Amino acid sequence: MISRDCKACIGTWPRRDHFIADCGLTQAYLHEDQFFSGWTVLVLKQHATELFDLSRADRCSLIEEVSSISCLLAAEWQAIKMNYELLGNQLPHIHWHLIPRQRQDPAPLEPVWRIPHEPVRLADDRLHSLIERLQSLWPRHIHAATQRI
Amino acid sequence: MISRDCKACIGTWPRRDHFIADCGLTQAYLHEDQFFSGWTVLVLKQHATELFDLSRADRCSLIEEVSSISCLLAAEWQAIKMNYELLGNQLPHIHWHLIPRQRQDPAPLEPVWRIPHEPVRLADDRLHSLIERLQSLWPRHIHAATQRI
Repeated sequence: MISRDCKACIGTWPRRDHFIADCGLTQAYLHEDQFFSGWTVLVLKQHATELFDLSRADRCSLIEEVSSISCLLAAEWQAIKMNYELLGNQLPHIHWHLIPRQRQDPAPLEPVWRIPHEPVRLADDRLHSLIERLQSLWPRHIHAATQRI
Repeated sequence: MISRDCKACIGTWPRRDHFIADCGLTQAYLHEDQFFSGWTVLVLKQHATELFDLSRADRCSLIEEVSSISCLLAAEWQAIKMNYELLGNQLPHIHWHLIPRQRQDPAPLEPVWRIPHEPVRLADDRLHSLIERLQSLWPRHIHAATQRI
C-alpha cells in the first residue's frame, strides 16, 4: 500500500542517486548530508506511520534489517556507538536513521540533532564510490531476503 | 549478564521512583524530564550495547515491547507521532526513548533534542498518580510476557 500524499511513496525522497540496496521490507539510501559519515536511511517500502501499524512478523523482519545494516555500518566506520532513530515528524512514513557515531565526531556524546553544521553533500564521484563500496559489503542474508520477496 | 561499570546495570539510573513496569526483556520508566509529557525510557534488563549484540529472538521480543508501550503512550497522549530512539552515546546500555509528540509541542516537526528547555521535574504526587495511571493501562500481553520470564 502506498500513499499518494507521501514523498517516500511517490519516490521524490530520498534521492534516487543515493540508493544503496533493497533490503526486503526496506530500501537503504545514503543520507544526503554526510557531515556524519555513513549516515544511512532505511525506508519502509510499504506506507506505514508507526511501528504498531505493522504486523508482528513485519516488525521482526524490520528490526532484523535495521540490525544487519547497522552492523555493517558500525564495522565500516569503526563506530564507537550506533544511533538508531525512527522519528517521522516531518515525513510520517517509517524510515530509520542509522548513524555510526565516531570518536572524531564534534560531540560524540550528543544526539546528532544537537550539533549545528553545514550539510556535507558528496561530489558525484565520491558518492558513487561510497555506494559501490557499501553494495560490495551488503550482507548476503539481506540479499537472500530480498530474493524471497 | 550485567556490567559493573554500567549505571543501568547497577541500578543508579533511571531513578527507581520513576519505575512504571516490567515488560519482559525491558523495564519501563518515566523520563525524569517531563517537558515532553509522556516521555518514557525502556531499559533492557541484560547488558548489551547494540541491537546486533542480541539474538534474533531477543530483538523480536524487544521490538514488540517497544511497539506495545508506544501504542499505549500514543493513545494516552493523543500523539500526532511517536519518536523511537535508541542512542546510548552517554550510556551504552540498550535503552529506548519513546516520546509521544503532541500538536502543542513547541516544535512538533523537530527532534526533541533541538528544542532548548528547562527540564520539567514532576512533583511527587503528580509523578505517582501518572505512574499509577500508566500501570492501570499497561498492556495485558506485556504482563503475560513478564510472567513467562
